[in-house]
Amino acid sequence: MPLIALLTDFGLDDPYVGQMKGIIHRVCPQVDIVDLTHGVRAFNIHQAGFLLASSLDFFPGGTVFIAVVDPGVGSDRGIVLAETRDCCILAPDNGLLSQVLDAGVLKTCRRVPGNPLASTTFHGRDIFAPLGAELAQRKRVPGDFEVFDPKELVRLYLPAPAVCSTGVKCVVLHRDHYGNLALNLDIDPWAGRLQGIRMRLGGHEMVLVSYYAAIPEGCLGLVTGSQGKLEIAAREYSSARLLGLEPGDEVVISFID
Amino acid sequence: MPLIALLTDFGLDDPYVGQMKGIIHRVCPQVDIVDLTHGVRAFNIHQAGFLLASSLDFFPGGTVFIAVVDPGVGSDRGIVLAETRDCCILAPDNGLLSQVLDAGVLKTCRRVPGNPLASTTFHGRDIFAPLGAELAQRKRVPGDFEVFDPKELVRLYLPAPAVCSTGVKCVVLHRDHYGNLALNLDIDPWAGRLQGIRMRLGGHEMVLVSYYAAIPEGCLGLVTGSQGKLEIAAREYSSARLLGLEPGDEVVISFID
Amino acid sequence: MPLIALLTDFGLDDPYVGQMKGIIHRVCPQVDIVDLTHGVRAFNIHQAGFLLASSLDFFPGGTVFIAVVDPGVGSDRGIVLAETRDCCILAPDNGLLSQVLDAGVLKTCRRVPGNPLASTTFHGRDIFAPLGAELAQRKRVPGDFEVFDPKELVRLYLPAPAVCSTGVKCVVLHRDHYGNLALNLDIDPWAGRLQGIRMRLGGHEMVLVSYYAAIPEGCLGLVTGSQGKLEIAAREYSSARLLGLEPGDEVVISFID
Repeated sequence: MPLIALLTDFGLDDPYVGQMKGIIHRVCPQVDIVDLTHGVRAFNIHQAGFLLASSLDFFPGGTVFIAVVDPGVGSDRGIVLAETRDCCILAPDNGLLSQVLDAGVLKTCRRVPGNPLASTTFHGRDIFAPLGAELAQRKRVPGDFEVFDPKELVRLYLPAPAVCSTGVKCVVLHRDHYGNLALNLDIDPWAGRLQGIRMRLGGHEMVLVSYYAAIPEGCLGLVTGSQGKLEIAAREYSSARLLGLEPGDEVVISFID
Repeated sequence: MPLIALLTDFGLDDPYVGQMKGIIHRVCPQVDIVDLTHGVRAFNIHQAGFLLASSLDFFPGGTVFIAVVDPGVGSDRGIVLAETRDCCILAPDNGLLSQVLDAGVLKTCRRVPGNPLASTTFHGRDIFAPLGAELAQRKRVPGDFEVFDPKELVRLYLPAPAVCSTGVKCVVLHRDHYGNLALNLDIDPWAGRLQGIRMRLGGHEMVLVSYYAAIPEGCLGLVTGSQGKLEIAAREYSSARLLGLEPGDEVVISFID
Repeated sequence: MPLIALLTDFGLDDPYVGQMKGIIHRVCPQVDIVDLTHGVRAFNIHQAGFLLASSLDFFPGGTVFIAVVDPGVGSDRGIVLAETRDCCILAPDNGLLSQVLDAGVLKTCRRVPGNPLASTTFHGRDIFAPLGAELAQRKRVPGDFEVFDPKELVRLYLPAPAVCSTGVKCVVLHRDHYGNLALNLDIDPWAGRLQGIRMRLGGHEMVLVSYYAAIPEGCLGLVTGSQGKLEIAAREYSSARLLGLEPGDEVVISFID
């Protein structure tokens, strides 16, 4: 069964996602569609890239990912068909693929030509959905599209974590529904480096723990999150609210000697 | 594969949509279900009608649409089975089909009898879902139901746009997730009429553009939207918030000479 | 077609539900997945139990329910595989199954062993999803797991409604999207007992009605809701907002003689 996974900033209160799915079913009647999420913050290409990169591994080989956070829709920004070992990704060429590229899993990048019949305001429905459906049912294959050097992809860059003897400076990548804050600290190697160290953040002391319920009531913890990153979390409470932090914010974690 | 598309004001935080889908799968195990949206504002029949009418074209022939915005559930309001050229629509007879009727795509309207075994508070689950599933798998066909004259449908009316030499008065039909405001100005003919004209709205000057990124930073634009209507939009910002406008509000766009 | 129904407090703005579905499709490519809801309030085990218990009847036999409201993920809390007459439920052993147990529909409870390879922060994806998929496609069957006495289940208790000659004291179980408040008053027998009685709540007079539109404008009503409980509702308005009530709150309904 062909499988298409959708990632957008469309939200679910408009008919946009539904119309994309209608088109997908029209092109490819035997298809399963999974919503990775449509809750990317409006226009937040960086967050979309993080969620896409952290999700690829959990889908079957052959999945076609359609990732549309696309403030430049209708302009001359390009559209990319990227291939990993066993999946395809369709995305605007606006930096959304940066983190997938950084993860070293992109095999090829190909250019998708524009479509003069498409609307200028909803390529998700008019270009991405029908092409994704054709790829899912193998009516078209990546080889139909012209290859280009992934180095030519539009890129977005994040500062790398900066560590010194007194602490580590990092960036919030994502705030989840519970208020947990994913940092740009990969579990490997950071869980090893911070193991057993007492840390301070925003007046709160914390240590590294491996699950949320190991954080004492009223305290913060640094948790080995499920998306491959360390997360700041509170005990059944929003650490984002406690600390006043949002995605994109810089965080300085101090070591206590 | 039978396809059912759902449009409701149920939201997604309750088990209502899930229970409808459970029933659909019980009646018709081989079915695909697409959520057009469940984010219609509570009780907003007019908005539901707009979203339904603007979405029909994007679904495969044979789709059964179930549209339930139904404050009169359990009262003596009727239930309609409407047919377009190649689709069926189930909806309460409360005005929800007005805009589909105005679009000239309704072929027939049929009455669905009540069901004394159904709950009085959730016909979506107890009448619409099982009947939609039976129609989707052709256990029942529209011909099983009594035809009536579409002129007898309960109707909701919108004022038509009023144009004079100094401007055009219109109405907000929908505010989307990004804060874009769809107006009751059909792209054809209004994009042609407003092309190249400088306009003013709420102290902001704007022109017609064909895509969102063509709006200069900090400005408003009138955009040829994806739902067949002109939209007021801001550049990566909510024009609804900027202007304090909501669906149902009247808008006067002035021409600048 | 195997059917899996998901009930969580994950929300839809993160990739959590999507990753669970990716894993389910990887294990069981021919599967339908229904979202019962992911809008359970964060960590609200009691609300999850109510929504699960009130939804079981609307799904086909053979459905595998995966219910994950799991603040103790990664700790030593157990995981339960429960069987009803014709369905399976996977849930953490934290009280979530209390209301299903109280409903008398649990046939057996079985222990699911931990998985040392799973993450410590997302068992929904790493344990529940793959096991649910294997159960759905009958690669594994309940008999593979060790039975235990349902009396050993972790339980959550609600006070029962307390009735006296002047009124009834009850508890809000759920506040829905419209602001309707489901009470711990089963329609059978409470609709019969309160039929024709004038009642007062928070300064508002109300009577029992069978559908929402039977509530006069500006008034409250007690409605025979769709989830098997009596609901406090207002006419096209949120009774929760009007009364300032939330799930878990105690409500005293007075009888007017």
